[in-house]
Amino acid sequence: MINKPYNSALVIGLGLIGSSIARAIKEKKIAQNISAIDNNEKTINKTKELKIVNHIYDSFENISDQFDLIFICTPLSSYQSLFKKLNSFVKKPTLITDVGSTKVSVINDFKSFVNNDKLLFLPAHPIAGLEKSGPEHGFAKLFDDRYCIITPINSNDKFVESLSNIWRAIGMTVEIMDAERHDRVLAMTSHIPQLIAYSVVGTATELENQMKDEVIKYSAAGFRDFTRLAGSDPVMWRDVYEKNKEAVLEMLGRFSEDLLTYQKAIRNNDLKFLEDKFSRSREIRKIIEEIGQAGTFDPTEKN
Amino acid sequence: MINKPYNSALVIGLGLIGSSIARAIKEKKIAQNISAIDNNEKTINKTKELKIVNHIYDSFENISDQFDLIFICTPLSSYQSLFKKLNSFVKKPTLITDVGSTKVSVINDFKSFVNNDKLLFLPAHPIAGLEKSGPEHGFAKLFDDRYCIITPINSNDKFVESLSNIWRAIGMTVEIMDAERHDRVLAMTSHIPQLIAYSVVGTATELENQMKDEVIKYSAAGFRDFTRLAGSDPVMWRDVYEKNKEAVLEMLGRFSEDLLTYQKAIRNNDLKFLEDKFSRSREIRKIIEEIGQAGTFDPTEKN
Repeated sequence: MINKPYNSALVIGLGLIGSSIARAIKEKKIAQNISAIDNNEKTINKTKELKIVNHIYDSFENISDQFDLIFICTPLSSYQSLFKKLNSFVKKPTLITDVGSTKVSVINDFKSFVNNDKLLFLPAHPIAGLEKSGPEHGFAKLFDDRYCIITPINSNDKFVESLSNIWRAIGMTVEIMDAERHDRVLAMTSHIPQLIAYSVVGTATELENQMKDEVIKYSAAGFRDFTRLAGSDPVMWRDVYEKNKEAVLEMLGRFSEDLLTYQKAIRNNDLKFLEDKFSRSREIRKIIEEIGQAGTFDPTEKN
Repeated sequence: MINKPYNSALVIGLGLIGSSIARAIKEKKIAQNISAIDNNEKTINKTKELKIVNHIYDSFENISDQFDLIFICTPLSSYQSLFKKLNSFVKKPTLITDVGSTKVSVINDFKSFVNNDKLLFLPAHPIAGLEKSGPEHGFAKLFDDRYCIITPINSNDKFVESLSNIWRAIGMTVEIMDAERHDRVLAMTSHIPQLIAYSVVGTATELENQMKDEVIKYSAAGFRDFTRLAGSDPVMWRDVYEKNKEAVLEMLGRFSEDLLTYQKAIRNNDLKFLEDKFSRSREIRKIIEEIGQAGTFDPTEKN
């Protein structure tokens, strides 16, 4: 989908997603040179060891080159200072995209801190991930068969198509959405499940000691699926709840109301209500399997 | 662990667990002859096709043999009538165990409906499973590296050791627990996560239509893990909430209180609270990985 590789790409932030993008750029020949920047020394050393990129920097001050293509892959709380830096750093027209889990806040930050028209920015959210963090867990195939939602600031900007093609070349199916809508949909598909997973695991950590040990020991019963989500990066998620507060609180309200109806049904032995609800939920699962978005879970241990 | 195979085993109910047990009995040579009984015609035909057992029956009235070993693998709501039937069916000393997700109710049902001392019954709960149901999804290795919690009615009964050895031969690590404690621990590790998963998926089904389609489409973001749980058998789960009502309501109360503290933190921008809680939950995940109870999730689609 990319006729001729770009000369140079910069990945800002080498966590799971950033390092996977760097790998995909290399594997799919999207750019000839890949640089990266990260402020964590451990991450820098790990990245050097893994040989994922050609150059790695610890700050913008040490970079003398310009780039054709920049991916922002850092927690949402870093965007304001990052946009300020990019605003002064970028000297030639540069395609820029990001991977942030909320999009309204990202667009607001961009508008507040960027007045340099050489930054050709397409807000994006690749819907792909894993509960692991750090460059050692990334892999190029993470994006295959998954959607990348883009929320263009002006959809008729010419660079939207170029950046969409880059996401496609990485392996994703690109879908356009309004930023507000993105934030509401993702509140439901991502931010609420994640919060609930953290909360269930949190409840377990506060049980009396012996009981807590047993909950961990017998976690194969469903609890482990929640702990898998709860293995994700705490800072990244903390930022999501700050930046998507309104939509998260709305969906959380809906969820809590619904949960109360289940609680009441259990208290009143309303078995028909429970069976009906459970059967309807199972239908949703079947659809997700049919459209190929289910992933695969192996209940055995790989030894 | 079994010196000499038993002559004959009967598996009652050929769902995911029953069919996996039948396969394990064969593979690990626990009994020479395996019979099964199921009241669902489709399940019977599927089992014949799969050649998992030597004989399959649709009711006790059609069985003339006696067995050395019986596994009860049916939903909890069937136990009362099943114990009544076994009470009159069993003519010689027979080792009997079950796989029910609650244990207090099972023991109560046994005591209420059995007065035949040839039924040597060990209540058990193999902590292993998958969201699929039906004999076509079972496999012998489902039990490897997993715990089987037994809750003996009288722990000095001699047959407890024989039945424990059978569970060990199937591949499990046997742990003894008090039935009340089992029901509380499992409320937390299994019944609450399952209920919440159903509830989150249920909330999504009630969104306006276009939004619902998008939630399904972009489910790879965390929601899909909940739908995986929500793919489980509705009748089995309905019964669990009836039979373990008190413990489930208690744990649900704890969870709801905790979730409210997260909600308040989001509303008040208490980012420190969120980050601390998220970090503690991640620690729990690490422990579960370390003790080898995490399973493995592959975020890609197997094509």
